[in-house]
Amino acid sequence: MQYHLNGYRPGDPSISPAADRVVVQPKIVDVLIVGCGPAGLTLAAQLAAFPDIVTRIVDRKDGPLSLGQADGIACRSMEMFEAFGFADRVMKEAYWVNEVAFWRPGSAGDLHRADRIQDVEDGLSEMPHTILNQARVHDFYLEVMANAPRRLVPDYGMDLMSLTRDTGSHPIEAMFQSPDGVTETIRARYVVGCDGAHSTVRAELGYALRGEAARQLWGVMDVLAITDFPDIRLKSVIQSAGAGSILIIPREGGYLVRLYIELDALHGDERVADRNLTPDILIAKAQAILSPYAFDVKEVAWWSAYEIGQRLCDQFDDARPEQDPHIFITGDACHTHSPKAGQGMNVSMADAFNLGWKLAAVVRGQSGPDLLRSYSAERQAQAQELIDFDRDMARLFSARPEHADEAKAFQRYFKRHGRYTAGVETRYEPSLITGDSDHQALALGFPVGKRFHSAPVIRLADAKPMHLGHMLRADGRWRIVAFAPQDHRAALQRLCTFLADDPKSPILAATPPGEDIDAVIDLRAVLPVGHQGLSPTDLPSLLVPRKGRYGLQDYEKVFCLDPRNDIYDARQVNRSEGALIVVRPDQFVANVLPFAAHDQLSAFFAGFMVAV
Amino acid sequence: MQYHLNGYRPGDPSISPAADRVVVQPKIVDVLIVGCGPAGLTLAAQLAAFPDIVTRIVDRKDGPLSLGQADGIACRSMEMFEAFGFADRVMKEAYWVNEVAFWRPGSAGDLHRADRIQDVEDGLSEMPHTILNQARVHDFYLEVMANAPRRLVPDYGMDLMSLTRDTGSHPIEAMFQSPDGVTETIRARYVVGCDGAHSTVRAELGYALRGEAARQLWGVMDVLAITDFPDIRLKSVIQSAGAGSILIIPREGGYLVRLYIELDALHGDERVADRNLTPDILIAKAQAILSPYAFDVKEVAWWSAYEIGQRLCDQFDDARPEQDPHIFITGDACHTHSPKAGQGMNVSMADAFNLGWKLAAVVRGQSGPDLLRSYSAERQAQAQELIDFDRDMARLFSARPEHADEAKAFQRYFKRHGRYTAGVETRYEPSLITGDSDHQALALGFPVGKRFHSAPVIRLADAKPMHLGHMLRADGRWRIVAFAPQDHRAALQRLCTFLADDPKSPILAATPPGEDIDAVIDLRAVLPVGHQGLSPTDLPSLLVPRKGRYGLQDYEKVFCLDPRNDIYDARQVNRSEGALIVVRPDQFVANVLPFAAHDQLSAFFAGFMVAV
Repeated sequence: MQYHLNGYRPGDPSISPAADRVVVQPKIVDVLIVGCGPAGLTLAAQLAAFPDIVTRIVDRKDGPLSLGQADGIACRSMEMFEAFGFADRVMKEAYWVNEVAFWRPGSAGDLHRADRIQDVEDGLSEMPHTILNQARVHDFYLEVMANAPRRLVPDYGMDLMSLTRDTGSHPIEAMFQSPDGVTETIRARYVVGCDGAHSTVRAELGYALRGEAARQLWGVMDVLAITDFPDIRLKSVIQSAGAGSILIIPREGGYLVRLYIELDALHGDERVADRNLTPDILIAKAQAILSPYAFDVKEVAWWSAYEIGQRLCDQFDDARPEQDPHIFITGDACHTHSPKAGQGMNVSMADAFNLGWKLAAVVRGQSGPDLLRSYSAERQAQAQELIDFDRDMARLFSARPEHADEAKAFQRYFKRHGRYTAGVETRYEPSLITGDSDHQALALGFPVGKRFHSAPVIRLADAKPMHLGHMLRADGRWRIVAFAPQDHRAALQRLCTFLADDPKSPILAATPPGEDIDAVIDLRAVLPVGHQGLSPTDLPSLLVPRKGRYGLQDYEKVFCLDPRNDIYDARQVNRSEGALIVVRPDQFVANVLPFAAHDQLSAFFAGFMVAV
Repeated sequence: MQYHLNGYRPGDPSISPAADRVVVQPKIVDVLIVGCGPAGLTLAAQLAAFPDIVTRIVDRKDGPLSLGQADGIACRSMEMFEAFGFADRVMKEAYWVNEVAFWRPGSAGDLHRADRIQDVEDGLSEMPHTILNQARVHDFYLEVMANAPRRLVPDYGMDLMSLTRDTGSHPIEAMFQSPDGVTETIRARYVVGCDGAHSTVRAELGYALRGEAARQLWGVMDVLAITDFPDIRLKSVIQSAGAGSILIIPREGGYLVRLYIELDALHGDERVADRNLTPDILIAKAQAILSPYAFDVKEVAWWSAYEIGQRLCDQFDDARPEQDPHIFITGDACHTHSPKAGQGMNVSMADAFNLGWKLAAVVRGQSGPDLLRSYSAERQAQAQELIDFDRDMARLFSARPEHADEAKAFQRYFKRHGRYTAGVETRYEPSLITGDSDHQALALGFPVGKRFHSAPVIRLADAKPMHLGHMLRADGRWRIVAFAPQDHRAALQRLCTFLADDPKSPILAATPPGEDIDAVIDLRAVLPVGHQGLSPTDLPSLLVPRKGRYGLQDYEKVFCLDPRNDIYDARQVNRSEGALIVVRPDQFVANVLPFAAHDQLSAFFAGFMVAV
């Protein structure tokens, strides 16, 4: 954490100085967020970081969530939480999914453990796969929002009635109604529907979720129970001989456990509610599947039933060829799938993280409105991929393991897709903001279009061992991570001279007068040497930039090798040539370029960034 | 973290359910703590954890600290913070002391870096050495207290006027006065003076600090500055040719830095105030020492001046041969020393952590009042050692490095004592609560009388990689950590049969009826095998005990080897024989016994624990 730049300030450094002139419940806003689920809160936390963006977030519910719903947090989401500053709190409270057990009927018809595998392969992420009540994730986001410069707090009890689009700088008019019938109108430059599977924003756009419900009914419950099932504290997939399947997800705190329980398929027009399900029915079913193990439920903390459906919108915004997008939908509002792959909350948050910095860049005038079209393009393709994956997964999960081969196929599938469920396989196609792979060979471990994969380094100035990726904060900034070649002195000097002094420098082009030199594009350097042979005073001044009201030097820009884990080896960076890794504000690798490719670097940024 | 044992409870799990019948500002208390510094708050945080102990903490100041004072947090204190649940927050906000640089005059009279060493030797602690404003440490303790069952909050503006001792269950009467002259009387069973170097509690005891002020004057200041000194973000000891010495301590947030600046010795009766010191004088002096490097101070966040003195009380309580102690003093109230070894706050907190569980045990009737005599015995000896160390350190620090040999001697001394300044060398002598070393050979890496040195393990039930020492919470419980021998099944079964069923079991003797079996003595096991070959259902039931209102099983008692770091090797535990490590509530190793030494185990606990 960096703080005290503009003078010593006592107290909690995670509470930012408040922005000037924050209006409570403004009627005219830059961004209106409808819905306080994981997507809405991720977006709100992102936007609240900017003192100059007016955001409002509303929800039809009467207050924050306290129970139930999603619980799986993929490694990739943990990486994002780190950028928002609360991954450590999730790590502390959450259950960690370390291994997965697979149980199948033995030859005598009883259950036996067929396999037990590592959940996250070594080196996939520095973050664990965790399980934590969605309500706690909300709490952390609400805290980030409240402590951010905009001091953003949701307004509850506001039900969206209509959205209309006309012209002007704030072309969207949203009408809300409170539970006691009072209406309120908000005019917004942009509206984002994070309002779930029954999204009003989607309905107002006239869009439909396409796809079929699979009619497979599932029950889910969080319970406190006593059992002699040996793997009750491991994520366990249990496929019984004839009673169906269960997925066991141990929960935070050491005692709670979640069960996903397969129920009979729905028939014809039957709806979930027609079944008159009760917790006792779910418990009896769980007991049948787990037999001969005992399962004595002492308390049901939460339960629900749902049918699996994979459905998707064709488009996640209201853009037309002749019309820039001003209305967006995210998360369950534009794609729904089964909860068992643990993707729902994660993909929704990833939608919002993709959109947040783009909205900020356009509202703040750093990029033109074209940038916003990349949201639907990037995330709709991802959602399609997820839905295909989820359909396969659900089918394999519900298949009766009459033949060992089928069960083994499921295990293989599960294992092979571990990278996918960890959320680190997302890859955006080349676009305005994502380069091609022409120079990928210079840094094979930083694939263009995929998330920046962190590795350990030592910070030069204070010899701190840390993860390089943890300097990627959720602050809307682009980053150039310059992996210097072996002969680093002259090469770094040339790069910094270009970036600091050349009229074609993308940093100079993007940085408004009076702002810190790293306010828009943040240059970092990694050197292929140990840290003890160098000092910050040996570096070009752009790498120890003077910032803030006092012109203090920022000593946290440069990193060296951790001798226990050489990042050039770990990420296959060409040591003799080096590489420039351009990283988007959402931590995705936008481009890999040769170290001296000044013109290409300028051209890339010029493609989407407004010169000031 | 373990929670939801007695039913699902939404919200932040670090907020404990409140104790019944908490009286605000009680007039009759079990423990009265005078002073809200690091010692007082450590003690308050410890006592607030017990729903059945009535504590009050008061301070003469009008509110919590916001600036300055101590900043060094030794590894050992970080381990203690982990037990209180906030080490992660300190790690996130703090500066990490990774290396120390030593600067001396070169042959041309200018400064050069003579050496650069690792600050904490590898493997000394799983925790870093950190630097963080004392006020933030206070904040974390205040949060722990407020979230604890007793919801403890300090009362400020209460100046202690007198302490009188008579008889009865609450023999101490304390009289306070508020700034507007209102008096208040509190009757307490025990009073603890955590009221600093000018302690009123010490004065009321009639005790004096013995020792001489060394008359060496030092200035300290926290500044935001611009400099070309290369090691400004490293802890640096700078001994100039003729201008004196400086210690640079980089501070949290990346910009702030603390300087300890040597000034001229005080002469005769001269007092610090006589010097009319100003920040500008300190800055000029710092600039002279750092020359030829520039040092341009932009803001002085805090500054002070002090003379080094090493002073100590003979006794830290009011015990007499015929009279149990009821009044205690801790921290600066009983020992003062120079701040430069970074020991002050750490030793004060260690005093309080030593005393806290003992007070709790006696107030709750788990131990007789004799236990309380061990506080002064253990901590006075430690303070004497610290003062000897500090005197040597201060002398070497101020020595003019005219000869390279002298400077090198200082470096050697500094290096050799790294373990000491990390706080992990404290070793309590054999006593009622600390065994002898007869069986030390069974576990050489857990020296009796020293703090339990953590190492990595894998938790059996959920395959979680973790530090074994992190199960040592600040909850007043004793722990038996049973390192099973290679042939673990039969041996563990015999141990658990003894502990669960034998009339001589110390656990049965100590546990009140109706309490969980681990409420007073918490049995844990470490097995010298990998975790995948075993299940919790293979274990004796005492190691998966049923707890709470539902009788849920606790799956977090048993650990296996981390293949990357075998704890039996790391801590030199005899693999064929195993060992029982008895751990005090303050994380110190109380005893090492043979695995089957049932009678010795019983006898050890019977020495200080009341059978119920």
